[in-house]
Amino acid sequence: MSYTKLEKTFYRLSQLSQASSFLGWDQQVMMPAKGNDSRGQALAELSVIATEIIQSPELEDAFAAAEEEVDLEPWQKINLSKMREKWLKANAVPKALVEAQAIASNQCEYAWRSLRKQNNWKDFEPQLTEIFNLSREHAQALVTGLEKEKTYQNEYEALLDLYDPGTKLTRVDDVFDALKQVIPELLHQVLERQRLQPKPTRQSHSIDKDRQVALSKHIMSLLGFDFDAGRLDEAAHPFSGGSSDDSRITTRYSPDNVLEGLMGIIHETGHARYESGLPKAWRNRPIGQSMGMGVHESQSLFFEMQVGRSEHFIQAISPKLQQYLGRDPAFETDNLLTLYRQVTPGLIRVNADEVTYPLHVILRYEIERDIILGRMEVKDIPERWNEAMLSYLGLDTRGNFTDGPMQDIHWPSGAIGYFPSYTLGALTAAQLFSSLKKDVTDVDDLIGKLEFTPIFNWLEKNIWHNASSLNYDELMTQVTGETLNTEYFIDHLKNRYL
Amino acid sequence: MSYTKLEKTFYRLSQLSQASSFLGWDQQVMMPAKGNDSRGQALAELSVIATEIIQSPELEDAFAAAEEEVDLEPWQKINLSKMREKWLKANAVPKALVEAQAIASNQCEYAWRSLRKQNNWKDFEPQLTEIFNLSREHAQALVTGLEKEKTYQNEYEALLDLYDPGTKLTRVDDVFDALKQVIPELLHQVLERQRLQPKPTRQSHSIDKDRQVALSKHIMSLLGFDFDAGRLDEAAHPFSGGSSDDSRITTRYSPDNVLEGLMGIIHETGHARYESGLPKAWRNRPIGQSMGMGVHESQSLFFEMQVGRSEHFIQAISPKLQQYLGRDPAFETDNLLTLYRQVTPGLIRVNADEVTYPLHVILRYEIERDIILGRMEVKDIPERWNEAMLSYLGLDTRGNFTDGPMQDIHWPSGAIGYFPSYTLGALTAAQLFSSLKKDVTDVDDLIGKLEFTPIFNWLEKNIWHNASSLNYDELMTQVTGETLNTEYFIDHLKNRYL
Repeated sequence: MSYTKLEKTFYRLSQLSQASSFLGWDQQVMMPAKGNDSRGQALAELSVIATEIIQSPELEDAFAAAEEEVDLEPWQKINLSKMREKWLKANAVPKALVEAQAIASNQCEYAWRSLRKQNNWKDFEPQLTEIFNLSREHAQALVTGLEKEKTYQNEYEALLDLYDPGTKLTRVDDVFDALKQVIPELLHQVLERQRLQPKPTRQSHSIDKDRQVALSKHIMSLLGFDFDAGRLDEAAHPFSGGSSDDSRITTRYSPDNVLEGLMGIIHETGHARYESGLPKAWRNRPIGQSMGMGVHESQSLFFEMQVGRSEHFIQAISPKLQQYLGRDPAFETDNLLTLYRQVTPGLIRVNADEVTYPLHVILRYEIERDIILGRMEVKDIPERWNEAMLSYLGLDTRGNFTDGPMQDIHWPSGAIGYFPSYTLGALTAAQLFSSLKKDVTDVDDLIGKLEFTPIFNWLEKNIWHNASSLNYDELMTQVTGETLNTEYFIDHLKNRYL
Repeated sequence: MSYTKLEKTFYRLSQLSQASSFLGWDQQVMMPAKGNDSRGQALAELSVIATEIIQSPELEDAFAAAEEEVDLEPWQKINLSKMREKWLKANAVPKALVEAQAIASNQCEYAWRSLRKQNNWKDFEPQLTEIFNLSREHAQALVTGLEKEKTYQNEYEALLDLYDPGTKLTRVDDVFDALKQVIPELLHQVLERQRLQPKPTRQSHSIDKDRQVALSKHIMSLLGFDFDAGRLDEAAHPFSGGSSDDSRITTRYSPDNVLEGLMGIIHETGHARYESGLPKAWRNRPIGQSMGMGVHESQSLFFEMQVGRSEHFIQAISPKLQQYLGRDPAFETDNLLTLYRQVTPGLIRVNADEVTYPLHVILRYEIERDIILGRMEVKDIPERWNEAMLSYLGLDTRGNFTDGPMQDIHWPSGAIGYFPSYTLGALTAAQLFSSLKKDVTDVDDLIGKLEFTPIFNWLEKNIWHNASSLNYDELMTQVTGETLNTEYFIDHLKNRYL
């Protein structure tokens, strides 16, 4: 009975989280400006209710009793351990610290929006210092609170574990070391090769929004997005949300640069397909949730990088672009391939190509890890940032905070330990795609015919349907025969860009 | 401190209710079909959480202690008594009964949607019987549970009190008796007079949605609707929701009948203005809420019937219609006046004009009251309905259940005791408008110039700003110098229609 009681508690938490997710979507997409304060209050209250539920003292007895229950099915035992982990993480951290973090990150994120525009590192630095201090405290609380359950190598690993449960720091270091050894030389070769190639042509005519919406929806439908179970809307800062049965993707439409947003939509469709492919039988239970940010990103990058930017896909959608948007030399296959595979070392992570992106991530990882572990301070970030950008990408960033260490929302909003997921996701996607090619014949041919069903079935069976019932290493071994191996990603880059 | 604790509890309830309101709006306006089940689960869980909060045993001590607090301000004492009333009402009814009502009304409303289309009273009757039985039980529980606080005349009065707090059955009976004496003869005269007048002309050309939206938004803006604090959207079954800082009005656009929806938008704008005019200092507190369904409806009908269908308003918007929708004889002032003041005894309440509307309400009131008080049974409804429709409006409804006793959502959804509010609202609106004319000079002239600020200021000061700090009789006496008096409404009808 205690197990059932715990399931009810986590069902309630799941419903609260779902309510917050849609209220948050509405806030970004629909809400008029003056609704913001009361929306903030409502979201804050739902969050306090959820915290009180998971910190309720009676849960301790319920967990103790549930551990003794002998008639649990194997999946229920896994679910119990997932509930336990969430409960431990939520209770390891003092309420006062959680509140202090919420206030500090709200303030810092708010200040960041204007300070970034003003290139004002000086006023940003003390606020960011506070964010990192509180995050370090949070990490220390996790290390102490979970010492019987988890053997975190250090505080930073405890933060990683919040975003990507089970990821070890040694894994991250091994992977990033390998990439640091290979990518700079690879980048050099790619740029050399690219110099001899034609430059991509930009779109020549302005395209109204209705046509862009129609094209976007058509491509999403081709990729299996079910518009009876989701929507595509506009948002000033695109994001995705919603729930498994109701995916909410957002984008921005630029009349003069249609191609920029298109890959973003394919990317978000991958996130949405993962969520909607999670098993219905496990809904509203921790075992039924997605595995973590790394695997989530692997699905969006599988859609975007492995499928969306592949030669066969681009060949197949070039006529669609001409059909929906009108004829334009920019929409010819060769130009699309050139454009969507352009490699350019740049200052901004979110604009980075596949080759340079990991270096942006590694830079951020090294800095945030070293601050959490007390090896450097927030005030040292600009210097360290400049050194790394010079060394990794040959770019001088001195004095440019806006497009330097102030460019991302992650740090001011308190999301420390998140960045590695992006690159772990890219590597996972490459490895999964390689396995797909072994399991399903003629993958390129299927993509070229826009016949994705066998590919989606493979993803559903191998990834989506497992939800959180396996850990990451188990999943990768089961699907690809080995744990994460950097070679697949490096081969992918070499094949595509050399 | 106990008072503060109670305020916190009701703040939480208010936030839960706000969250549900926006999730409900999204469900009707934005949500794709397949999201419905999980949305239903989320809304149900929020409702269970709210019930557990207000039924929490510790509130009893908190109320007892708060009553002893001597340093409360007068408004806090009122707020305390409002909180107490909500708490008593929520705790008077056994949890099992609330759940049984939720299930029964869900099922009955769902069945009603198809049974109504099939004109199938036979299968509807047992389900509706169950709804009325549970509602009677609910009423009995209220009478017993609140016997120390409220002296309900009978069970039906306890139900009335849920929708329109403080309304006495004697008030309803007095008002409805007066209307039954006057309206049939008045109706006869109006119809005689109308026979000699020209018939209204229907719109001659089809009008696309964009133009209708632009016109609707323009008229809403004229009426003080702030689009930075609200939205206008489409819904299959129009309704309004949202919160004080974020009103969500919905409508339907018909290309061939633009005029039909327009008064609905003016009506809903009245509801929205009331909510947004409630005092900010009392937000999220029972004292700061709207007074009940009757006063709410008085505000929407003030906007629609007193202002919107007035000669000066129609003269002033006729050129706007021509400007936004294109020239059409239907949009000439004389035709608009004829159309918007057409009186036609009909089967359907929601399509009824101002003169016949009260008879539809009285019919429903008499039936639901008699069933709750055990004077008749659900199976007798069709016969009783037919008798009343014949007697009040001269219409035979035998065998027509679809447009007879199955036309409204109220009964299948369990909203028994709600109907009288519509007519109490219409009477209240007429009486308030009469006082406005005494307090503000040249009201007709202001309306004709579309200069509403003095009118809105009067409403804000006299109605909106009082929120729930007064009871209905206090409010009416303070604003109009007397309690509800049917004469204002009857005079209004005579002036407009004879």
